[in-house]
Amino acid sequence: MSTNQFTSQSRGQYESKAYSAMGPTSLLVPTSISRREPGDNDIKIDILFCGICHSDLHQVRNEWSAMPTVYPCVPGHEIIGRVTNVGSQVTKFKPGDLAAVGCLVDSDGNCPHCQAGLEQFCSQMTLTYNSPDAHLGGVTYGGYSDSIVVKEHFVLRVPSNLDLAAAAPLLCAGITTYSPMRHWGVTKGRKVGVVGLGGLGHMAVKFAHALEAHVVVFTTSLNKKVDAHRLGADEVVVSQNNEDMKRHASTFDFIIDTVSAEHDVNALLQLLRPDGTLTLVGAPDRPHAVSAMALLFNRRNLSGSLIGGIAETQEMLDFCSKHNITADVEVIPIQKVNEAYERLARGDVKYRFTIDMASLKSQ
Amino acid sequence: MSTNQFTSQSRGQYESKAYSAMGPTSLLVPTSISRREPGDNDIKIDILFCGICHSDLHQVRNEWSAMPTVYPCVPGHEIIGRVTNVGSQVTKFKPGDLAAVGCLVDSDGNCPHCQAGLEQFCSQMTLTYNSPDAHLGGVTYGGYSDSIVVKEHFVLRVPSNLDLAAAAPLLCAGITTYSPMRHWGVTKGRKVGVVGLGGLGHMAVKFAHALEAHVVVFTTSLNKKVDAHRLGADEVVVSQNNEDMKRHASTFDFIIDTVSAEHDVNALLQLLRPDGTLTLVGAPDRPHAVSAMALLFNRRNLSGSLIGGIAETQEMLDFCSKHNITADVEVIPIQKVNEAYERLARGDVKYRFTIDMASLKSQ
Repeated sequence: MSTNQFTSQSRGQYESKAYSAMGPTSLLVPTSISRREPGDNDIKIDILFCGICHSDLHQVRNEWSAMPTVYPCVPGHEIIGRVTNVGSQVTKFKPGDLAAVGCLVDSDGNCPHCQAGLEQFCSQMTLTYNSPDAHLGGVTYGGYSDSIVVKEHFVLRVPSNLDLAAAAPLLCAGITTYSPMRHWGVTKGRKVGVVGLGGLGHMAVKFAHALEAHVVVFTTSLNKKVDAHRLGADEVVVSQNNEDMKRHASTFDFIIDTVSAEHDVNALLQLLRPDGTLTLVGAPDRPHAVSAMALLFNRRNLSGSLIGGIAETQEMLDFCSKHNITADVEVIPIQKVNEAYERLARGDVKYRFTIDMASLKSQ
Repeated sequence: MSTNQFTSQSRGQYESKAYSAMGPTSLLVPTSISRREPGDNDIKIDILFCGICHSDLHQVRNEWSAMPTVYPCVPGHEIIGRVTNVGSQVTKFKPGDLAAVGCLVDSDGNCPHCQAGLEQFCSQMTLTYNSPDAHLGGVTYGGYSDSIVVKEHFVLRVPSNLDLAAAAPLLCAGITTYSPMRHWGVTKGRKVGVVGLGGLGHMAVKFAHALEAHVVVFTTSLNKKVDAHRLGADEVVVSQNNEDMKRHASTFDFIIDTVSAEHDVNALLQLLRPDGTLTLVGAPDRPHAVSAMALLFNRRNLSGSLIGGIAETQEMLDFCSKHNITADVEVIPIQKVNEAYERLARGDVKYRFTIDMASLKSQ
């Protein structure tokens, strides 16, 4: 234990209720975790709702070789709650305010990326869970808990007109789909494709529609057609239908691909007009087979995107407030989290689970 | 034969000496081809030099399934010559002027791409060879010939300070490497990678150096180190050296990948900083295996690029004039073209072949 950690610890800790996994094949079970008492720049939040993200499941099951899981693991990075305490230097929040926390809880603050509001690129960034915890040692613990303490800069304001349970997934599914659309210039009249209609895809459709793009949903079956239109799609294309795919060749400005299963990205690249971009936000286990020719013709781009910076996350929440956008959620008590993981793994949710954290408090 | 073609043909034709292939396994042999007499907007050019591009070899051997070769095939799209006749509507050229022709000889002129000076994206564009010839029927014939007739808009001015033989490859190898650097913002102080040091790569090094970037050449062997530095590289990295590759991780603004052989693009993607771009200008036969994760982190881009528009090609020639840039060429008589193809196929040229067309005229 370093001196630095001791100093931080000397501020004091408290115990917080949580659900954690003890190993890659363990169920999530009730536990108690240590949180730091808020420092001068910290905000303590009473967690009301926490969305369940597919990342939670991957991390709990230790499915990412690049980010091995440290157990016990308390997942959750789609956090909505109410401020209970603030440190002496906190200026933007007071007890009683609504507050949200997404995927990031710290970064170095000084690097060019942080200075540009792109904390997601900071080499020193701290993820909300499973990242080294500079205050208490070990790793950070996420939002499947009754409270959390976070540095003010990483706490978002929650517009008061949003349904809180349905707003929780905005903190990851929302920003993950909103950010690349803004980055690649989705605006009125642009032709935008959304590949896959799950947790990420359904948010992408809502955002693209609100941005007044012409929205085309690509799906593997027509079962989702009615829902796609309800969410804001102008057209629905079954991606196995070669005739339909041909009809759309070289016409899209932007396509967001939310699919994590293996699939043919070349067929999607062919749909892009000159200088069009296909952005991946899902990551299949195996590499995509990408035809260089599909990129050379029309000077097409294949890019990736992961969450967004803090300023843009706030912008997204404010955009949601203005356009009355939230996720379509199924609210569950935390006691059903393991069942929800099973259903999530087989795609059986429309479109995100949110945990009502009152269920943890009363446990 | 359509009425339209008859009308065009009624302008008259003349015979031009050329070298053509009669089939995918045939050698290039002397022949005579029909050219149209110049129309009102046309320029007739006496060809002095024609570069040999790897595309010539692919097309002659019918190696592109998407663009089947029509025989006889007269390749060549790196053309430098002197104007001999101009049509009545031609304003920018007069007999005696130097002139150049690249990969394009026509487009519809009215579509948004043409209007934006991006003729390479026009769905009606006519390539310099093996494209349907709207004037004479059949396909267009390229620059392995003693003359060519081209619409004024597609004829470039040749700065007088450039060596003509060495300038020929600028019309394809030059613009192919210059265009993506301009498009992706290569400027002073940017860190730029060049993968592969062949015909395209050696031009990329010269351009990146002239644009005052920090230029790093990636090669498979250190044999090319001295030459890379001579051409303008600041550093040379052997791409199989994992330690060197790691040292450069997440530091590049832009990488141009000129390699047509199969290779690992993920190792290159890892070198890009946030929002960095890897542009492919070579096209391996088999798809690249691309890790989605490599793109997601740092919001990286994988893009392609193919030649450039007419205005940008002129800009490139003027840039070459200012910075005294030409290709490193080995000048051959056309009688050695088949031998040159064999050497090109095994990478035995530093760095481009240019045919001295005087050898055809005296044949």
